Amino acid sequence: MNAVDPRLSMNQATIKYANLETALEVTVDAGVQAIGLWREPVNDVGLDVATRMLTDSGLRFTTHCRGGFFTLPDGPARIAALDDNRRAIEETAALAAAGAAGSTAVLVLVAGGLPEGARDLAGTRHRVQDAIGELVPDALAAGVTLAIEPLHPMYISDRCVVSTLGQALDIAADFDARAVGVTVDTFHVFWDPDVLIQIARAGREGRLATYQVCDWKTPLPADVLLSRHYPGDGVIDFGSLTRAVVDAGYTGDIEVEIFNEDIWAAEHREVVRRTAAGFRDAVVPHL
Amino acid sequence: MNAVDPRLSMNQATIKYANLETALEVTVDAGVQAIGLWREPVNDVGLDVATRMLTDSGLRFTTHCRGGFFTLPDGPARIAALDDNRRAIEETAALAAAGAAGSTAVLVLVAGGLPEGARDLAGTRHRVQDAIGELVPDALAAGVTLAIEPLHPMYISDRCVVSTLGQALDIAADFDARAVGVTVDTFHVFWDPDVLIQIARAGREGRLATYQVCDWKTPLPADVLLSRHYPGDGVIDFGSLTRAVVDAGYTGDIEVEIFNEDIWAAEHREVVRRTAAGFRDAVVPHL
Repeated sequence: MNAVDPRLSMNQATIKYANLETALEVTVDAGVQAIGLWREPVNDVGLDVATRMLTDSGLRFTTHCRGGFFTLPDGPARIAALDDNRRAIEETAALAAAGAAGSTAVLVLVAGGLPEGARDLAGTRHRVQDAIGELVPDALAAGVTLAIEPLHPMYISDRCVVSTLGQALDIAADFDARAVGVTVDTFHVFWDPDVLIQIARAGREGRLATYQVCDWKTPLPADVLLSRHYPGDGVIDFGSLTRAVVDAGYTGDIEVEIFNEDIWAAEHREVVRRTAAGFRDAVVPHL
Repeated sequence: MNAVDPRLSMNQATIKYANLETALEVTVDAGVQAIGLWREPVNDVGLDVATRMLTDSGLRFTTHCRGGFFTLPDGPARIAALDDNRRAIEETAALAAAGAAGSTAVLVLVAGGLPEGARDLAGTRHRVQDAIGELVPDALAAGVTLAIEPLHPMYISDRCVVSTLGQALDIAADFDARAVGVTVDTFHVFWDPDVLIQIARAGREGRLATYQVCDWKTPLPADVLLSRHYPGDGVIDFGSLTRAVVDAGYTGDIEVEIFNEDIWAAEHREVVRRTAAGFRDAVVPHL
């Protein structure tokens, strides 16, 4: 009756308070075939244990969240951020190798916001490009794609100076498409008048590394970071966006990634069930 | 010592709880030479009284806020919205005529959000364009410029489906530049990677109808509508934006428009003084 679509991937952030063991278990038990992981719960058990647990689960691995946050000027903090990204690249490769056939080695990158006291968006964006350039050899060597994620412009100053898909593709354009792609997350890009054109461009340029879905609804909560909803519960037109992604040639798994206090507080199995139902009703008809 | 720059215009929303009489008085007393008004306080006293008060104040009139909110589908509510916009056009013309020499007849337009239950951004945007088209003859007849204001994308669903300056210019492009221009408000556009290019384009196309300044700072307050700050108190680079506006040929007054509960709660004269100081320190050096 309610078969789970094979392309649904459960992003672990949607059940933020589950540890890795629980996240894998409830995902498998719901009949979901793939999962996107976050660094913290992976590192809580250690990469070796995490990869074995992932293999045992039989799930495909879709993305690792996340790298980035490298907008700092030259100095020790920037070097540390780059080193941390190199570890994230290694984790991504290991997890992709441990996941079931069809897993993808994609590391989602969130650029980072303006450094404390800074106002120079253009300069900060250049530093993002430089940092990615430094990581490309590592990504190529590991067979990992860095997926630059444009974040909604309300996060411009404190989380991400990359705000549009076009801008992410402009940054990616300098680099080998095997190493640098983009993340299309409906929540972050649906408002953009150019989004459909840029999704098509991402396909043409071989950069569409991952597609993530969740919904937008107002009023926004007091913490705007937690304003994501189940697909279908808000105002996003998943039809036009999903068809554009399909037309762009994307055939991979599709993650549902939700930051939302109420959803985090709910029982994990119920969250996975609601996620699958929202995906089935709002997204699957357009695949 | 602390002369107020002659191009500063006090937008009445910055002292939201002042009635028209008080707003004019504290603006004049502070040595500010121009004011942007809002429809509600003008209509509280009636247009005839408002125009006389404005003339008596000796202030220049810079913009009327605001028209728009016409994203509804065909029907009585849409007709009512258009009629209301026609009244706003008449008010704008009357106020501009009543203000001191150098006043400008500019009606700021905020498009409106998605209608209840709607998800079709593209269709909603087309309705905005159609509505503006219906108002152009009225605007031309009255000598009023409709200034389409792109709002930050965090207001996409509930306030404004026009999110970028490029999009506003695309909408304006179909119409006579005497009748349809754009509003450049730093808060709404500073994040846009294309903003400097689009400001230059606005100048080239003769569409830069008004320049408004206020600042962006995080964390955003619980009501994101009230997240505007005095120029200089946040992260916006007023240098690059203001120089772009100057280079685009804009020679008009510059409004400071702030929605902020703390600023609204402060004493009006202190707010005008702080506004003038922020403008002097953050904006004037780039004029």
